[in-house]
Amino acid sequence: MNAVNFISADCGFDEADAVVFGAPYDSTTSFRPGARFGTAAIRMESFGIETYSPYQRADLADRRIHDAGDLELPFGDPARPLAMIESEAARILDAGKMPALLGGEHLVTLGAVRAAAERHPDLRIIHFDAHADLRQDYLGNALSHACVIRRCHDILGDGRIWQFGIRSGTREEFDFMAAGHVVTEPFTLATLPSLSFPENTPVYLTVDLDVLDPSEFPGTGTQEAGGVAFQQLLSAVLDVFRRFRVVAFDFVELAPHLDPSGRSTALACKILREALLAATARRVA
Amino acid sequence: MNAVNFISADCGFDEADAVVFGAPYDSTTSFRPGARFGTAAIRMESFGIETYSPYQRADLADRRIHDAGDLELPFGDPARPLAMIESEAARILDAGKMPALLGGEHLVTLGAVRAAAERHPDLRIIHFDAHADLRQDYLGNALSHACVIRRCHDILGDGRIWQFGIRSGTREEFDFMAAGHVVTEPFTLATLPSLSFPENTPVYLTVDLDVLDPSEFPGTGTQEAGGVAFQQLLSAVLDVFRRFRVVAFDFVELAPHLDPSGRSTALACKILREALLAATARRVA
Amino acid sequence: MNAVNFISADCGFDEADAVVFGAPYDSTTSFRPGARFGTAAIRMESFGIETYSPYQRADLADRRIHDAGDLELPFGDPARPLAMIESEAARILDAGKMPALLGGEHLVTLGAVRAAAERHPDLRIIHFDAHADLRQDYLGNALSHACVIRRCHDILGDGRIWQFGIRSGTREEFDFMAAGHVVTEPFTLATLPSLSFPENTPVYLTVDLDVLDPSEFPGTGTQEAGGVAFQQLLSAVLDVFRRFRVVAFDFVELAPHLDPSGRSTALACKILREALLAATARRVA
Amino acid sequence: MNAVNFISADCGFDEADAVVFGAPYDSTTSFRPGARFGTAAIRMESFGIETYSPYQRADLADRRIHDAGDLELPFGDPARPLAMIESEAARILDAGKMPALLGGEHLVTLGAVRAAAERHPDLRIIHFDAHADLRQDYLGNALSHACVIRRCHDILGDGRIWQFGIRSGTREEFDFMAAGHVVTEPFTLATLPSLSFPENTPVYLTVDLDVLDPSEFPGTGTQEAGGVAFQQLLSAVLDVFRRFRVVAFDFVELAPHLDPSGRSTALACKILREALLAATARRVA
Amino acid sequence: MNAVNFISADCGFDEADAVVFGAPYDSTTSFRPGARFGTAAIRMESFGIETYSPYQRADLADRRIHDAGDLELPFGDPARPLAMIESEAARILDAGKMPALLGGEHLVTLGAVRAAAERHPDLRIIHFDAHADLRQDYLGNALSHACVIRRCHDILGDGRIWQFGIRSGTREEFDFMAAGHVVTEPFTLATLPSLSFPENTPVYLTVDLDVLDPSEFPGTGTQEAGGVAFQQLLSAVLDVFRRFRVVAFDFVELAPHLDPSGRSTALACKILREALLAATARRVA
Amino acid sequence: MNAVNFISADCGFDEADAVVFGAPYDSTTSFRPGARFGTAAIRMESFGIETYSPYQRADLADRRIHDAGDLELPFGDPARPLAMIESEAARILDAGKMPALLGGEHLVTLGAVRAAAERHPDLRIIHFDAHADLRQDYLGNALSHACVIRRCHDILGDGRIWQFGIRSGTREEFDFMAAGHVVTEPFTLATLPSLSFPENTPVYLTVDLDVLDPSEFPGTGTQEAGGVAFQQLLSAVLDVFRRFRVVAFDFVELAPHLDPSGRSTALACKILREALLAATARRVA
Repeated sequence: MNAVNFISADCGFDEADAVVFGAPYDSTTSFRPGARFGTAAIRMESFGIETYSPYQRADLADRRIHDAGDLELPFGDPARPLAMIESEAARILDAGKMPALLGGEHLVTLGAVRAAAERHPDLRIIHFDAHADLRQDYLGNALSHACVIRRCHDILGDGRIWQFGIRSGTREEFDFMAAGHVVTEPFTLATLPSLSFPENTPVYLTVDLDVLDPSEFPGTGTQEAGGVAFQQLLSAVLDVFRRFRVVAFDFVELAPHLDPSGRSTALACKILREALLAATARRVA
Repeated sequence: MNAVNFISADCGFDEADAVVFGAPYDSTTSFRPGARFGTAAIRMESFGIETYSPYQRADLADRRIHDAGDLELPFGDPARPLAMIESEAARILDAGKMPALLGGEHLVTLGAVRAAAERHPDLRIIHFDAHADLRQDYLGNALSHACVIRRCHDILGDGRIWQFGIRSGTREEFDFMAAGHVVTEPFTLATLPSLSFPENTPVYLTVDLDVLDPSEFPGTGTQEAGGVAFQQLLSAVLDVFRRFRVVAFDFVELAPHLDPSGRSTALACKILREALLAATARRVA
Repeated sequence: MNAVNFISADCGFDEADAVVFGAPYDSTTSFRPGARFGTAAIRMESFGIETYSPYQRADLADRRIHDAGDLELPFGDPARPLAMIESEAARILDAGKMPALLGGEHLVTLGAVRAAAERHPDLRIIHFDAHADLRQDYLGNALSHACVIRRCHDILGDGRIWQFGIRSGTREEFDFMAAGHVVTEPFTLATLPSLSFPENTPVYLTVDLDVLDPSEFPGTGTQEAGGVAFQQLLSAVLDVFRRFRVVAFDFVELAPHLDPSGRSTALACKILREALLAATARRVA
Repeated sequence: MNAVNFISADCGFDEADAVVFGAPYDSTTSFRPGARFGTAAIRMESFGIETYSPYQRADLADRRIHDAGDLELPFGDPARPLAMIESEAARILDAGKMPALLGGEHLVTLGAVRAAAERHPDLRIIHFDAHADLRQDYLGNALSHACVIRRCHDILGDGRIWQFGIRSGTREEFDFMAAGHVVTEPFTLATLPSLSFPENTPVYLTVDLDVLDPSEFPGTGTQEAGGVAFQQLLSAVLDVFRRFRVVAFDFVELAPHLDPSGRSTALACKILREALLAATARRVA
Repeated sequence: MNAVNFISADCGFDEADAVVFGAPYDSTTSFRPGARFGTAAIRMESFGIETYSPYQRADLADRRIHDAGDLELPFGDPARPLAMIESEAARILDAGKMPALLGGEHLVTLGAVRAAAERHPDLRIIHFDAHADLRQDYLGNALSHACVIRRCHDILGDGRIWQFGIRSGTREEFDFMAAGHVVTEPFTLATLPSLSFPENTPVYLTVDLDVLDPSEFPGTGTQEAGGVAFQQLLSAVLDVFRRFRVVAFDFVELAPHLDPSGRSTALACKILREALLAATARRVA
Repeated sequence: MNAVNFISADCGFDEADAVVFGAPYDSTTSFRPGARFGTAAIRMESFGIETYSPYQRADLADRRIHDAGDLELPFGDPARPLAMIESEAARILDAGKMPALLGGEHLVTLGAVRAAAERHPDLRIIHFDAHADLRQDYLGNALSHACVIRRCHDILGDGRIWQFGIRSGTREEFDFMAAGHVVTEPFTLATLPSLSFPENTPVYLTVDLDVLDPSEFPGTGTQEAGGVAFQQLLSAVLDVFRRFRVVAFDFVELAPHLDPSGRSTALACKILREALLAATARRVA
């Protein structure tokens, strides 16, 4: 499927600083599926927002961004889709560009993290989410969107993952946090400004959009009341790009059909615009 | 109808500390009906939340809660449904257990209050709501969801009812408050922490979920902008259980079909989980 | 999850003549998912229909039907879910009862067909569907809902599968039919009355509900205009039960969330009632 | 509430030949409520249809029709609403005009039938519906929309009610028909042309719009697959007006919110236009 | 906006036999707007149908079709959008290719008819629609979707327009037909097979999809009960292409957001596939 | 169309202090249309709110407000609709009454501003909105909802327009602000209290309801995350009426069909009640 590109992401691959690509996969979603439609919705609705950001006083039209379209992922067993995502992320990284992955369900993050971790062995993950995603398995499946951060931990090990906004999980997941395997701030993003890494530490930013309050972002499969506001998430995302060396990032779990008002998709477009501006700011300056 | 139980509410009646029961009735709803579907939606969707609460660091799986299912209430004239609700609440109270009533429209509260007031003559009501519900009658009907707190006042008399969050009513209802028959805090829940009762005063907690802002809880028949946030309501509910001797409680006016995103039902499940944990905390300790 | 039973299917397993069970799985759905919610919707809404059938002048209340509930199937890789479905179908068949499988996506049929074919080597399949489902693979996956009848053909071989109502497929699928591997009537069910088998030939009946016209059954993931009417499908289903020795059957691909009017689910409940009455008629007589 | 009038029904009461009035009541609806919104939706959407009928080659603009608006009925106990409907129907009948009642749920018919039967002791009822509505009571309530034709039978006695299109009911209801208390044609309207009455027999026509197939009319609370087509219902309604002396009629059970496409309301507007033209044709000629 | 192409319409302009282009304009829609989203929905959803047609035993993959995308039309005053549509149709006609216009509201037809009539002075129009669209003006506007066929009549004159399926209009419009200015078959398409033209008469085919029954095609702004079935429309469209020299055609008035089930869009994709196959059949043979 | 009046706005024109009128036009809407249905929705749903305001301790029942209904505006070219709006606003102003215009899209404001500016040459505009609406043209159209404030600037000149809450626009629009042609506060309403005008300066207040956060007001065509809260907007509106000499005002861009929960319409009703109370307060005192 020859999808439309994200607004203003009309640069060729070779010239691009950042490369958007979609992973429309949601087969392991445990509750309400539909995240597979997130990538197409974001591209389609992106023409309803402006290219100019009053937040950053910058314009996407001035940046070099390529939209590589959607991977054609088979539904069902996640092994092959994950390999395809890893391969695409690797291609972008190896070309010296910033991968911007759009989900799909959160499991797609694992493909991109594999590629990034192989190239950046000291990779850290900053993780915004309502859910811990730290289960060892879900009904016996280790490859589930409910386990994706645990799978990342399998790769990176202890002390490499920082979670913010978590407000749902099993007792076992909260015990896993308490044991120090990951660093978790429940409920809010408040302590992000005090987070610091050694200079040049490579960072993977993964944003499960359900970290937002369901009032602002109802279009997602597993809504959790008590979330963060758009303004808070936007500030946090910009802060991450400003202070850290982000090497890849993703936004996942938009399920547009669950929000007939369309505002969840509009919000996703807007925060993606802001992230792309922030991700390419360095190279402009 | 042999309904599913609320998640983890799988204890037998005799062993239970708290008993959930549903009153799927909404025949007097004056605006948009559908609260009859609230109880089934809560049970069905409860399997989408976790049993563990990061707010209270407690797990429903450790509590003894029975789900008695839904009463099979005839629609139309409310007299018989109210008697059936009263009878079921009485059965639970007489067994020394905590009734947790799920609506249905707000009128169902009257059945449970009748049972509680008969057994606790010095009963107080703490009432969270957007609407005063203090009308003498509605189009000539004294038994209407718009009159339910007035009917409770008929039973309990002056100075026994505390209302919070009220932001809609007729002039007559606000005059009734001003005359001191009930104690009303308009718009917010801010003064709840300063409320105190003599030790062991029995309290009935009734939560009309439309006290929440419609952005967070659109799934209700009569939405009123300017409501409270989930976090505020959660804190207030936990505060009531911690500081007062709650003898029964209810959550009413979820009309799930009015919120196709499903987040209202998810929120209702979550706050019911928290209330059940709080309601059974004492007995655990 | 302790689901409600289908209306009147409240007999114990041992006494039952037919056993309903659900397979809420839809991970390989290639277009719009949601069939996972079909089983719960059918049970829940079944209380909105009558137990009495004016078509057959019979009442479900007089039949012995057990509802075994839903299998708890992991999403993602279909291998394990298929094994679980096969195992449950085998348990029912080995107890001498009629399995009535509810999907979920069409791939779930494969689990039940495996169990039936092992016990009935001369099994025939009667298949009502809008889609041929005869692909060798879908984006490389052999286990996809678009391939399920081809996988059944792998087991049963040529000349054992009769398809009716097919109105969509690739050229390769229509070539496969034309080569005589399966017998296909496109567009209608008109030739069913002339179909005959040797006496006592065991038949598996699989009904993809999207064989119906989307006007009557919009609640399915891949709607194909030009389908059959409810009355035609009902007559055909009753004809199959009356004239053949059905050993197991299924109804699949109800995706209730795609039909906010609810009539697709109501229709599914009604045709399941009719099928259960027909399936147990012999034993009554 | 000062509702808009039905399109072209802008004649004063005194000059009118027919009088439209609404009964927005649905408190006894046993399944999905919302018929209370039917009257407002019909008026509002009537401005989307033409006043001219190509079926009858006639124009509403040439007829004298008054729209008396909606009765302000209290929800809950049906006794008072029924009395108010009876009183309004009586007022119209006593002025020598044709009452055209819009529901609301089917129970509202009882009010109008009471008024008509008192004035026309030899009244017959022609009843188009998917449901028999012949229960003695529903969960103990004799005044329920599921019992309305039985209540009419209480007034009129045996052999006075003709039902068409019925395709759902309990065994007891079908036994009641079989015993000859009412004359019922199941499933279709085919025998209507052969129905005849003694000249000048007064007829009450009640149309539960769910007699239509749910594909054409999804906007109703209890949808039954296998219904009649719009063209068939239109022909039948016109036939009744042409051949019988209709003294009053109603259309009930439009629940507009259950059909987000809006076509159910549009259809209701159209058939009401046709009925009003037919009802006033005599007086034009 | 760089839209996706219709499935398999991936040929370059120069090589193409037929050229699809979209006119996403709906500013004069008098009732419910949204037809502007029809073109994008058709392209996006076209990937949910097969390229192979079992009706014509032909495959789009074998045809040379170009998708020129959507014109970027300003909303508001229709004069400029019509000029842009005319210009694009002219470009395609002048290149010797078949224009396939997708609406948008029906007014867009006028642009394409202007281009076709200028090049084919003896042009005839075959018009499938529920509405006559013959008003002289609508609230004073001559350029309205309710007037589009009248505007075509202004160009072509008497006896050049054949209408089928019309079931709604004002008395004035039906008088205009009766006066013989256009030839109209109300309600059905039954007489199409008897229509004949002198050999090589150029024909413009315009299909307002609301000619279909709203049960099969609810996704349109002004639904009229009593329409034709998909099978009938498909046969008629194929008949037109087989027997006449079609020089251009359009499908208009899909308003996808009015049909949350999505089946209207799926039907539009399917009939467009069939029309494109029929339109390019000659050149294959 | 004889629309219902806004609740309690049942005073005759001559006696009224304020006059509500609707402009159901949305033909230039660039993204998702539907604002044409805003006026009818507000009137219809206004009967779901109380006439009493606990915010102002005042009751609409005590005020003299006339509802002049909706203008019957032709869709398409905006020139004539704007003239009709200007004419109606002029009629109300010339009668010494306060016009309260309901949209419709934001372009309708231009008609009322023309009338007000002609009568009050020193008019100022206070503008609450998410979007700057300062484009010179939109795809070549100068009369577009995206240009409405620029058109007002054409009339009033520099330094006469104050914008609040703006969070979206093109770089050119933000440059226009920066050049001082208008005074713009981005994102919030925080500086409104410090705004002051010379005594008796006439003020036109225009409220594009999408200034609200989409979580509270999803029912609008172009939603922008990061908006203001209802409480903030309400305070701001009351502040404007209290401190300034408002001569006319409007609320625009409610598109009710985009919010199936109905809370956007309910909010619009509530803030209109508050504005009408504030607008008529002076004359009461």
